[in-house]
Amino acid sequence: MIEKGDVLAADIGGTNLRLARVQAGGHIVREVRVQTNFSQLTELSSEAAAQAIVDTISQAAQPLLDADIVGLGIGFPGFFMGDSGILASSPNIPQLDNFNLAELLSNQLHIPVSAQNDALCAAIGEHTFGAGKGHKNLLHITLGTGIGGGFILNHQPYTGEHGMAMEFGHLCVAHGQDARLCGCGNHGCVEAYASASAISARYAEISGEQLETKIIFERGIQGNHEANVIIKSAASYLGQAIAEAIKLLDIQTVCISGGLIGAWNILHPNIMVSLNNNLIPPQQNKVRILPSILKDNAGLLGAANLFNKPK
Amino acid sequence: MIEKGDVLAADIGGTNLRLARVQAGGHIVREVRVQTNFSQLTELSSEAAAQAIVDTISQAAQPLLDADIVGLGIGFPGFFMGDSGILASSPNIPQLDNFNLAELLSNQLHIPVSAQNDALCAAIGEHTFGAGKGHKNLLHITLGTGIGGGFILNHQPYTGEHGMAMEFGHLCVAHGQDARLCGCGNHGCVEAYASASAISARYAEISGEQLETKIIFERGIQGNHEANVIIKSAASYLGQAIAEAIKLLDIQTVCISGGLIGAWNILHPNIMVSLNNNLIPPQQNKVRILPSILKDNAGLLGAANLFNKPK
Repeated sequence: MIEKGDVLAADIGGTNLRLARVQAGGHIVREVRVQTNFSQLTELSSEAAAQAIVDTISQAAQPLLDADIVGLGIGFPGFFMGDSGILASSPNIPQLDNFNLAELLSNQLHIPVSAQNDALCAAIGEHTFGAGKGHKNLLHITLGTGIGGGFILNHQPYTGEHGMAMEFGHLCVAHGQDARLCGCGNHGCVEAYASASAISARYAEISGEQLETKIIFERGIQGNHEANVIIKSAASYLGQAIAEAIKLLDIQTVCISGGLIGAWNILHPNIMVSLNNNLIPPQQNKVRILPSILKDNAGLLGAANLFNKPK
Repeated sequence: MIEKGDVLAADIGGTNLRLARVQAGGHIVREVRVQTNFSQLTELSSEAAAQAIVDTISQAAQPLLDADIVGLGIGFPGFFMGDSGILASSPNIPQLDNFNLAELLSNQLHIPVSAQNDALCAAIGEHTFGAGKGHKNLLHITLGTGIGGGFILNHQPYTGEHGMAMEFGHLCVAHGQDARLCGCGNHGCVEAYASASAISARYAEISGEQLETKIIFERGIQGNHEANVIIKSAASYLGQAIAEAIKLLDIQTVCISGGLIGAWNILHPNIMVSLNNNLIPPQQNKVRILPSILKDNAGLLGAANLFNKPK
């Protein structure tokens, strides 16, 4: 929990940056959104790209900053070295290498700054303020353009040795020549079957219609056959991937966020069947899967909470 | 490490029980082996089966017991509730249910008793005295009749919420109708491709010869084509399964034990190629796979060390 004073929190994506002022208890009192063009930073040098990121966040933070702000927490798409705030690497901006995002921003804004992987921030948010509150262990899965994963173990964020833990979206759920190609270059990743973009692509393949995933979920709820087929299939693949995680982690609580949870009544039973079918018998019927409570705010509130995790 | 006095350690399998007296530093000073018939216990009531197990271990321990023994550690094939020594369930003796193995034995032998999952004991042993010594995190994989997994996280055994963590052998490496049937009832588990028994069965399928796996490994080293095909294939499936674990756990060190490591020169390069091919690019070339140093003694020495883990 945020213990004293307000904090700033930033949730940073490839095209969009959200920056909010957050009170104790996870209440967002003010928020700004700015468009980013981080996908174009690949053309810059490492130093120029780093400076552009720092400047963008710094400028967005200025209007929300005053003497009561105790710090800034950032969720950023990349791999961080433990709790250091140093970005070891970022798949989207490959020239960034050991970029001390937290220190550079702290020098510019004159407040303490923490930074962590965006999917892990979403897990922290949901664990601190949302569906995972009170659960000792939580696997949090974000279904977006890709599929992100974050793990809370014994109430603490689990980063892995290189900040690359819980690459849940790249668990393999299909093998062989027909397995779908994933953005990572491999075939058969769950992300290639159950992310929002995969659902849209798969729906177009069987219906001929290219639709926003939100519309596909609505159609699914209304009983549209093709939409149902794709959502049920995505749920089944998700259940398979969750089973792989449970076989290793043996935890009880999994939380899912992303637009697809709008179709929870179709999604949830189909995930559960697939999950239990893919576990070994003694592990069956021990896992509950919860829909996100915080939804789009999970990452932002997790970033807000970065100051309160023991270093 | 074992800090003072000698301890007894038991490594219990379905047909064989090893009981040893172990000194500080992991030195085995005396050992007894007795045949067990635990597979026949399924015909007994829960209480009678539990008593038969306690009696068998107790009788084996008597000749090694004296006033200098500070305790007994047991590695047992089943799922334990944390560090309690209570066996929640055992796949091989299904009627056992919340069987307090440690307490019953302690009452009978009048020394402290700890008990834990056998595959986790092997991981503890290899981490404390073997190839994993000094490594903060270690995934240990035992290739036997089945495939067991044990995980040391931040120098501590990782049990999971139900004592069922690291069911590595049941990670899925093949999908579809042709995927091999596993003993757990599912298809496509890595155990169905790379365990000693799977290798023996697969070798028989392509060569027509039913051989002990040890002979198959020797033939592989000598360049026999069919043996090489099967060992390389097993290595490739193992690499796939290890990749799934690394995508989630993001650790650097994996240790493999079991007879197959006798063919390490064939096994290791083929695991590494498959592992790195199946990881996402930023995770590639960060993992080292080590052969067991303790070999058959890993479980026994891990059991000996159960007294020294913080409760």
